[in-house]
Amino acid sequence: MTTDVTAPTRTKRAGFVGGGFMATVHSRAARAARAELVGAASSSPERATAAAERLGLETGFDSLEALLADPGIDVVHICTPNATHAGFARAALEAGKHVICEKPLATTSADAAEIVALAEERGLVAAVPFVYRFHPMAREARARVAAGETGRLLSVNGAYLQDWLAAPNDDDWRVDSAVGGPSRAFADIGSHLVDLVEFVAGERIVRLNAASRTVYTDRATHSGIETEDLVALVVELDSGAIGTLLVSQVAPGHKNALTIELAGTEASIRFEQERPDTLWLGRTEASALIERDPARLSPDAARLSLVPAGHPMGYQDAFNAFVADAYAAIDGVVPDGLPRFADGLRAVRLTEAVLASSERRDWVEVAA
Amino acid sequence: MTTDVTAPTRTKRAGFVGGGFMATVHSRAARAARAELVGAASSSPERATAAAERLGLETGFDSLEALLADPGIDVVHICTPNATHAGFARAALEAGKHVICEKPLATTSADAAEIVALAEERGLVAAVPFVYRFHPMAREARARVAAGETGRLLSVNGAYLQDWLAAPNDDDWRVDSAVGGPSRAFADIGSHLVDLVEFVAGERIVRLNAASRTVYTDRATHSGIETEDLVALVVELDSGAIGTLLVSQVAPGHKNALTIELAGTEASIRFEQERPDTLWLGRTEASALIERDPARLSPDAARLSLVPAGHPMGYQDAFNAFVADAYAAIDGVVPDGLPRFADGLRAVRLTEAVLASSERRDWVEVAA
Amino acid sequence: MTTDVTAPTRTKRAGFVGGGFMATVHSRAARAARAELVGAASSSPERATAAAERLGLETGFDSLEALLADPGIDVVHICTPNATHAGFARAALEAGKHVICEKPLATTSADAAEIVALAEERGLVAAVPFVYRFHPMAREARARVAAGETGRLLSVNGAYLQDWLAAPNDDDWRVDSAVGGPSRAFADIGSHLVDLVEFVAGERIVRLNAASRTVYTDRATHSGIETEDLVALVVELDSGAIGTLLVSQVAPGHKNALTIELAGTEASIRFEQERPDTLWLGRTEASALIERDPARLSPDAARLSLVPAGHPMGYQDAFNAFVADAYAAIDGVVPDGLPRFADGLRAVRLTEAVLASSERRDWVEVAA
Amino acid sequence: MTTDVTAPTRTKRAGFVGGGFMATVHSRAARAARAELVGAASSSPERATAAAERLGLETGFDSLEALLADPGIDVVHICTPNATHAGFARAALEAGKHVICEKPLATTSADAAEIVALAEERGLVAAVPFVYRFHPMAREARARVAAGETGRLLSVNGAYLQDWLAAPNDDDWRVDSAVGGPSRAFADIGSHLVDLVEFVAGERIVRLNAASRTVYTDRATHSGIETEDLVALVVELDSGAIGTLLVSQVAPGHKNALTIELAGTEASIRFEQERPDTLWLGRTEASALIERDPARLSPDAARLSLVPAGHPMGYQDAFNAFVADAYAAIDGVVPDGLPRFADGLRAVRLTEAVLASSERRDWVEVAA
Repeated sequence: MTTDVTAPTRTKRAGFVGGGFMATVHSRAARAARAELVGAASSSPERATAAAERLGLETGFDSLEALLADPGIDVVHICTPNATHAGFARAALEAGKHVICEKPLATTSADAAEIVALAEERGLVAAVPFVYRFHPMAREARARVAAGETGRLLSVNGAYLQDWLAAPNDDDWRVDSAVGGPSRAFADIGSHLVDLVEFVAGERIVRLNAASRTVYTDRATHSGIETEDLVALVVELDSGAIGTLLVSQVAPGHKNALTIELAGTEASIRFEQERPDTLWLGRTEASALIERDPARLSPDAARLSLVPAGHPMGYQDAFNAFVADAYAAIDGVVPDGLPRFADGLRAVRLTEAVLASSERRDWVEVAA
Repeated sequence: MTTDVTAPTRTKRAGFVGGGFMATVHSRAARAARAELVGAASSSPERATAAAERLGLETGFDSLEALLADPGIDVVHICTPNATHAGFARAALEAGKHVICEKPLATTSADAAEIVALAEERGLVAAVPFVYRFHPMAREARARVAAGETGRLLSVNGAYLQDWLAAPNDDDWRVDSAVGGPSRAFADIGSHLVDLVEFVAGERIVRLNAASRTVYTDRATHSGIETEDLVALVVELDSGAIGTLLVSQVAPGHKNALTIELAGTEASIRFEQERPDTLWLGRTEASALIERDPARLSPDAARLSLVPAGHPMGYQDAFNAFVADAYAAIDGVVPDGLPRFADGLRAVRLTEAVLASSERRDWVEVAA
Repeated sequence: MTTDVTAPTRTKRAGFVGGGFMATVHSRAARAARAELVGAASSSPERATAAAERLGLETGFDSLEALLADPGIDVVHICTPNATHAGFARAALEAGKHVICEKPLATTSADAAEIVALAEERGLVAAVPFVYRFHPMAREARARVAAGETGRLLSVNGAYLQDWLAAPNDDDWRVDSAVGGPSRAFADIGSHLVDLVEFVAGERIVRLNAASRTVYTDRATHSGIETEDLVALVVELDSGAIGTLLVSQVAPGHKNALTIELAGTEASIRFEQERPDTLWLGRTEASALIERDPARLSPDAARLSLVPAGHPMGYQDAFNAFVADAYAAIDGVVPDGLPRFADGLRAVRLTEAVLASSERRDWVEVAA
Repeated sequence: MTTDVTAPTRTKRAGFVGGGFMATVHSRAARAARAELVGAASSSPERATAAAERLGLETGFDSLEALLADPGIDVVHICTPNATHAGFARAALEAGKHVICEKPLATTSADAAEIVALAEERGLVAAVPFVYRFHPMAREARARVAAGETGRLLSVNGAYLQDWLAAPNDDDWRVDSAVGGPSRAFADIGSHLVDLVEFVAGERIVRLNAASRTVYTDRATHSGIETEDLVALVVELDSGAIGTLLVSQVAPGHKNALTIELAGTEASIRFEQERPDTLWLGRTEASALIERDPARLSPDAARLSLVPAGHPMGYQDAFNAFVADAYAAIDGVVPDGLPRFADGLRAVRLTEAVLASSERRDWVEVAA
């Protein structure tokens, strides 16, 4: 802990699009990274003022264009509803800004691929907050898998369970497919699950077979298209490993229960987002609970470990680390494990494969 | 706790076929049920003597026929390798004995169906130790589901994970398909998992889509047929609920991790075999840990609860209750939830559906 | 698991005094140990018949004397209220019977010492069910401490918490000091706690400083003497280690929460009775959860481990092992860790020290 | 979550004394509270530059005096070794600065009382980071106790266990009594434990009886005075409740295990710092795990809850909330539960009582 992951080499000047809860989370992370927070944009002067106030900023931009026109802004945080992500990101990249864009990156893989290419072409940093990668113990799991501690991967057991849409009248813009996109539960949280599985396992899901359900169909009257409340799927990975994933936003009692367990020929490893400071390492001889102790972690996990063992780290800490790493990338540093637009595209492709499999009732290959 | 579930109305006279670990478990249960333990049969005089000694019995029968010929025996416990179950059970039924036969009941559904019919025809009690049904809190879960406490079933998340075959040289007769049958992991432990899911949910798996893997193929040289080490499947139930099940005997660190979680419109409920005295009841408002407290359980769970809250119950207690209930059935009492040969047949059908789906790589309907 | 701990060398013929819940537990254990259960005694013909029926026995003795006069009885299980223990045990020993007597062995150390001497003089086995010693993982903890794995003992953190007397109107014969004795919570459950601490630590509590409380004083109107609901104490052990113990029967939500944690110079070790199949081994470098896996336990723990890893063992299993070991002692085998009357006396002395310290408000030396 | 607890009404200008780990934690919290971070002071120009750099500040002050002389600084964060706290705090208060001073506030209660009086006299905010008060679920526990949900308090079971001094050669300035003060384990972590017990219980420890141990005496050669590694104590509270507290820095496997459990006539409640987002609420009828869900918490707990249920909060989040509340107090807002110098004095008095009791081997009344 002699260095501080939040220390930037040069102060970033950040602008924010959107003024909801996620914008608050992004703005806290920008502050922790010692950025200069320039202002927030929204779709009207009133909303812009409210967003700026909420984020503790002095300037409200009454359109995306106004924000992008500010030459003092280096990096734009896009924190708006799903259907707007790709367009806003494209505009920001075309304006020469680095972009941190909420997931899902786009509602179609074509749109996502286009902005991946654009970011590459322009040489801009373009990151997507697959923020669970930034828990030190998720890194520790990844490092141990990469070092061969778990052996050849055999099976995956993953779930992402929530209950905030468990009651029939629970609602949100995400439920409206015109705003949220053609997938809801999978795009919203399943995308985090598959990203984390692939990130920790170091290999890809090559095909899958999914069933999905829309439990409360009258929530979808906004746009007439019902989006799924829950998905159950079997997956096959590069190495031949197989696994099950369950994704639900209608699972009473679960708030944000993202859990992955990988079983290999030598050991199993489990990470639970709701208890992010502990890994379970299963071995036939003797299993271990590995607590986050910076003195005993792999370098990448230790780097992200801001407080000593026994002092819990949380969601905002992970988010802060993500933003700090994205800012470091702007400075030309290439931090390991930064989720970029290509990772956002990957998640969209997996989402499309899930929708296709569920509809066709057949195995679907995931586009590489 | 004023009555004792192990109290029989008339002393049973039990014979045992086989002298391995499961025979010991059966014999302990018979003793707890105050049976008279007559003797043990095995395939040679030496083995019969050894089996009898191990079980603390005076008599060793040197063949099944010899045991069945003893008119003093009411009930036969069949505790031999899988491939012998159906034939031995048939012989015992034909000899007019009540039968408690280890699972899988048979290695084909045709064989299983035949002895189901035979038992019915003869009016004999024929039970299969789906023993996890006899944990009081599994009954409690079932009672709460039946009472509507969890609402309409939406999803199932189940797993049965072990590691006793995780090393390449781990071996056993179960690995030999000539003795163990065409399915190994699923027939052996997956059968318990689907039985418990259907028992607690009160509904049936109607179709499924499975992938399976044989990790160590040279274990199968005995018979040349490779049986599976792990299975991942998606299931659909009567009500339209979907779910994932993962079954593995190559999951390091897991000894006997049978876990089921059912999520309904009102609540989720989770039972873990390795912590059988606690249920987790997930609700959006407030979740609860329900400890086994006889004074506060449903009647059936209270009936099986032999010691007060806080005094753990275990595997042998569950087995004792199963045998006590099977013996009660011989006396004409019909205890709720006794797993009979029809339940054994059901598990064989589900196993066949898993094998078929995995081979065809398609959804398979489960025979009713 | 090739041998069965419950296998006796010669069938014991057991008699039971008392017909309550504990008598049922004793009788189950006697059956598991393949004893012949001769009969049950109580204070009237009606009660004797009821006791015998409850225990599944044919004979009811209408007095202790009648039972002791039966020359066919080898061993007497005393399962009556506390104040009768010493007298009944004395009578049984004088009748030449081996005795298994519920704790507390006596309500005064003088009485307890007398029957310790008597048992020794007569050469009879006299055991007290400090049954928590018989959980395999309590033995495993003890073996690891004895092997030096935890190093020099530094501190002890123990508690025994229940809630069955948490409501003002909760009542029982134990609350009546004329029947239950001068100490209640400590004699009843604190005695188990200190026995287990000393058993696992392999050293003795030499002095202690206690505070106690009687929360509901009107429960004590039976005899006019208020017995304690809870005790908090600091202890010092042989080695100089110190610790805290909390004992309460008025702790809502705790059913039978007996927990001990010993911290030494090398490692900590924790055993929780409500999860008896798991030990936590705390080390600075990496802590471990040690599951009961017979193949990997110390010999004594493996010996008591009747079912494989992952198949939970419980309270009745521990009780069965206690009775089996007491019966083995009758056969001249000396099983490690059998709690004898001397251990019962030890617990009475610790109880007296607690009462004295609490009254004098000072440190009290525990009689050796 | 419509408001953000970190939002100040007026930007604070903060200076920092010390450049170690705690200074980093303070500086992160100041940034999160949108303060202007003016500079850091240390005892030499080189150390001041290093401290400023570590904290990401432009200015290093080469003495406390230089920092205090800067009229642009409103509030001084004192993050230096224990023995300097009182003197530095006095100087800062005399310079008219608000002060946030690390605990222990002083090494004697006389010194602590003096600066309590000084802060009051000057009308300055003077806060001590008893930071565990700022976990939302610690507030929730307090609110539920205050609302009577647990009933009359009967017993307390508390512990604060660490292992960072478990090895003989583990060392630190804290071990040197000339720098760390006459108490180590209790002053350092026991102070947090008693503060949290009194904060949540809403009542005071009135007397106590302690035993303490210095395990490794040669660590103390710095100053010749051995400070304690561990303390075991019995406490009595205002209401007559009793309890045990165990404090150790030599408990292998425990990193920062601060745990308190209060048992009342109606319910028990437990908070564990290492799992700060969950409370256990023990009831005889049915116990509950209460997860931090802002929509369902008491107002004060909801106010401190920055992210939704299921998104873990951690140590830095709690620290940020503490600093934000201290800054709010500067603005004249009086946030509930802000730990002030009087609370720091209270902890010093309890520490002195522990030392006195341990030495005299007697009960000691705690000065009010």
